[in-house]
Amino acid sequence: MNYEKYKRFETIKLKDRTWPDKTIEKAPIWCSVDLRDGNQALITPMKIEEKVEMFQLLVDLGFKEIEVGFPSSSQIEYDFLRLLIEENLIPDDVTVQVLTQAREHLIRKTFEALKGLDKAIVHVYNSTSILQRDVVFNKDKDEIKQIAIDGVQLVKDLSKEFEGKVILEYSPESFTGTEVDYAMEVCEAVMDTWGASKDNKVIINLPSTVEMDTPNVYADQIEWMCRNFKDRERVIVSVHPHNDRGCGIASTELALLAGADRVEGTLFGNGERTGNVDVVTVALNMFTHGVDPQLELDNINDIKHVYEKCTKMDIPPRHPYVGQLVFTAFSGSHQDAINKGMHALRERNSKMWEVPYLPIDPSDLGRQYEPIVRINSQSGKGGVAYVMESMYGYHLPKGLQVDFAKVIQDISEEEGEVSPERVYDTFIEQYVDIKEPYEFIKQKLIDISEDDSEFERKAEITLKDHGEIRTIVGYGNGPIDAVKDAFNENGFVYTHFLDYSEHSLSSGSSSKAAAYVYLRVKGSAVQEYGVGVHPNITTATIKAIISAMNRIHKQLKK
Amino acid sequence: MNYEKYKRFETIKLKDRTWPDKTIEKAPIWCSVDLRDGNQALITPMKIEEKVEMFQLLVDLGFKEIEVGFPSSSQIEYDFLRLLIEENLIPDDVTVQVLTQAREHLIRKTFEALKGLDKAIVHVYNSTSILQRDVVFNKDKDEIKQIAIDGVQLVKDLSKEFEGKVILEYSPESFTGTEVDYAMEVCEAVMDTWGASKDNKVIINLPSTVEMDTPNVYADQIEWMCRNFKDRERVIVSVHPHNDRGCGIASTELALLAGADRVEGTLFGNGERTGNVDVVTVALNMFTHGVDPQLELDNINDIKHVYEKCTKMDIPPRHPYVGQLVFTAFSGSHQDAINKGMHALRERNSKMWEVPYLPIDPSDLGRQYEPIVRINSQSGKGGVAYVMESMYGYHLPKGLQVDFAKVIQDISEEEGEVSPERVYDTFIEQYVDIKEPYEFIKQKLIDISEDDSEFERKAEITLKDHGEIRTIVGYGNGPIDAVKDAFNENGFVYTHFLDYSEHSLSSGSSSKAAAYVYLRVKGSAVQEYGVGVHPNITTATIKAIISAMNRIHKQLKK
Repeated sequence: MNYEKYKRFETIKLKDRTWPDKTIEKAPIWCSVDLRDGNQALITPMKIEEKVEMFQLLVDLGFKEIEVGFPSSSQIEYDFLRLLIEENLIPDDVTVQVLTQAREHLIRKTFEALKGLDKAIVHVYNSTSILQRDVVFNKDKDEIKQIAIDGVQLVKDLSKEFEGKVILEYSPESFTGTEVDYAMEVCEAVMDTWGASKDNKVIINLPSTVEMDTPNVYADQIEWMCRNFKDRERVIVSVHPHNDRGCGIASTELALLAGADRVEGTLFGNGERTGNVDVVTVALNMFTHGVDPQLELDNINDIKHVYEKCTKMDIPPRHPYVGQLVFTAFSGSHQDAINKGMHALRERNSKMWEVPYLPIDPSDLGRQYEPIVRINSQSGKGGVAYVMESMYGYHLPKGLQVDFAKVIQDISEEEGEVSPERVYDTFIEQYVDIKEPYEFIKQKLIDISEDDSEFERKAEITLKDHGEIRTIVGYGNGPIDAVKDAFNENGFVYTHFLDYSEHSLSSGSSSKAAAYVYLRVKGSAVQEYGVGVHPNITTATIKAIISAMNRIHKQLKK
Repeated sequence: MNYEKYKRFETIKLKDRTWPDKTIEKAPIWCSVDLRDGNQALITPMKIEEKVEMFQLLVDLGFKEIEVGFPSSSQIEYDFLRLLIEENLIPDDVTVQVLTQAREHLIRKTFEALKGLDKAIVHVYNSTSILQRDVVFNKDKDEIKQIAIDGVQLVKDLSKEFEGKVILEYSPESFTGTEVDYAMEVCEAVMDTWGASKDNKVIINLPSTVEMDTPNVYADQIEWMCRNFKDRERVIVSVHPHNDRGCGIASTELALLAGADRVEGTLFGNGERTGNVDVVTVALNMFTHGVDPQLELDNINDIKHVYEKCTKMDIPPRHPYVGQLVFTAFSGSHQDAINKGMHALRERNSKMWEVPYLPIDPSDLGRQYEPIVRINSQSGKGGVAYVMESMYGYHLPKGLQVDFAKVIQDISEEEGEVSPERVYDTFIEQYVDIKEPYEFIKQKLIDISEDDSEFERKAEITLKDHGEIRTIVGYGNGPIDAVKDAFNENGFVYTHFLDYSEHSLSSGSSSKAAAYVYLRVKGSAVQEYGVGVHPNITTATIKAIISAMNRIHKQLKK
């Protein structure tokens, strides 16, 4: 590949940068550009009713600044702004923003579109990069600066006649390809023209129109700008990152460390080419660090739904926080760790979220724990255990997890992913519902203790044995002992209990109990689990033993 | 949203960091984990034949280290490695890597799987983070370190019996949640156990198993590690970033600035949850800075095709470099700038790629210029001009671009996106094929100059005029003058030429010429373009004039 036809754009290197020592301590001012940058990059741009729905969503999420379009560039954008104004759709605490190039007829048309608003951000831009000055505009630095000054002067003049309040935003477009000192010169000229002051701040938006370098370089550029404004107090420093190198989120975060006050971006990163920065991810990254994101993202599936409907773009399955697969752990060791982490969280009753491989509690986004684990050939015992516990309420003993995981692994190596239902059905078929050669029919447990200090129980078990019904009797100092005795003393294969546990089934069929037995054949390496499910604990245990004996029978026949 | 249940993980802050002053000057050692991390995170993991196809692709792209699986964890991964070995599918310059937990039975099984290989990277890991030590393993620092030491000792012992060469890789898994000094202690113990030296380097892989902080923090961790190894010469520092905060690429790039030698990742970022780092984007980011990426990515559509086939995952349309929409400019001003940038590049015959909004030449990836521009209501003249020029070879005069862009804008405001074919058809219908009320039938141009110093031409034009055939005659000192004279002197509406241009059609029908005329009606504001297309230049011009007059006729009737 001919890499020699490319070179980095050389820009500022801030030797005494301070941003790498900082952390993000508060949310920036968010400005959505979904209806502008986002919409313009759609194969099928939004219709007016879709724009209204998107605008309502943005308002509901808590955006206080929303760029609604470039009304002088197209009739649809003009009409949409008029609709917002005439139908009173803009809440008092939301300011709409309109984009315009620094050109007279566009600025005049923009002001026509704003009529009736009590406040608006007028966002004027012209391109200042070396490349664009050269090949697109064929103008020198002073001429390009003059375009900005003239545009802002006209906005100032028209603002005087305008009945509402105009907040000026200026973008030296393609800032990342502009010499920082020249960008500063243009921005200062703009602010001087406007008469900017602490009480009449100008939003200076420094777009990474095309992402051109690693995100630390953008941070250096932003910190340099923040430190070199004549009067930092009269500026709201805004960033507008794109994602050409896949680092839009990082660029935004490092720019915030570098001093930016405001972020322009879109939901889920919609926008021209590789997209604008995804403000949802930036906000949720803050959230997981204990910073109030100042956006309401707690029903992310609903947000996704409206977004996909309006944009006709699908959110990819690995998209942070919202993608279909991001709370899914396929790996066995991950599943095991998540399982243990969630248990620890519950046991400790901790207020702080700390679970391996889950940097956020899915329920904080209105998402579910259940789909975290999907079972494939590499899920291991953790995944199988998780599905059986979280979806069906079975707390499998550890050895049974290993045993059963192998069964599922075999299936998934044949068939690919195994659904939770398939996992459950397989479990029931393999460990619970085995009726050959022994099938439980009924049991009678008789307490035959005759005084308080000593007791014994008698178990009478009726079962089908190779098709024939028989009743066996055993004795012990507890029900399990008595049942075991009945089998061991009546000609069945003699077994030891290796393990026994039982619990009520907390989900699904809550009135039942599950019993697990692990039996080893005396004098043999053959050992098998059996599981019994029944409302009566004793019956569940008997069924578990019969199930294990059926499995042993099958093993011995091999 | 309850942000108070989260807090940042406090880690090292390197006050005297040097990485922000660095740039990436060469490609790292690439290690693909597509067949491991990538595969395990698929809804339907790859079948063996798909794994073979993916392996071949990775080899073709130039990966020299490829993690092929966790052979002790599943039969499929074991069988796949055996297949690679037994069918001699591993080129001499490629080293396969196998993953195993630091557990005895898994390490032993791993060595069984390796039999017959002449070299392999054995990648041993155990989790070292505070959280996992606590909730998953319930072990203290020394016990966790001992797991690593025991594992590595066993690998060392088994290596002695193994006929090939074993390169050790060790990962303190969940490194980003581990205290750096403890991670260092474990890594040094591992290297001491192994007997690492400058000539027997160990790959120390420092995974961002879960992306936990802004990428500068990972860079600080990596730089701290690089600076604090007892002997940096005996270490190959590898990074293995994930993408939970959407910053996997940035983390990788900053880690490379911080001193990492090696990157583990996947094609297009496939992998658990939000994915592993996308090595294609990291490599192409280098490429666009003039650094040899050491991967062959010049046919990215083919790579995409194999990837999508094997993984059954779709690459999203905004994915850097490869996404369907990333070389598409919807915005009018972007299209105009791209158009001008490409022209400038051709005119200057520059070897360096510099085009606004296109950080890479799409043809370097085997992609096309044509789909860069898609026409919607916001495309403006630049987009329309681009489609007509790049796809159909028409160099529209600037005024005609503006005129025609309005026509297309009206259509797209009604219908949404307008296909290039629709743009072309509309152009022909509106400017070329208009036959009412005047229709060209034939022309005869007679040279009547009688000596060399003076000449005149006579044009005889036969046309249908409101259904009637007539022949008109005009004279001038050139063909255009003569034609114009024929119309102006024969009772047609009298017009001035405002503009005239013609060119041969370089694409499509290359033997034809296109002529553009812009006529204004004498004493009126009515002015219209007309376009004529014909193999004969004069005929093309006559047809253009007739077309413009038909358009004028329509305007005057309004």
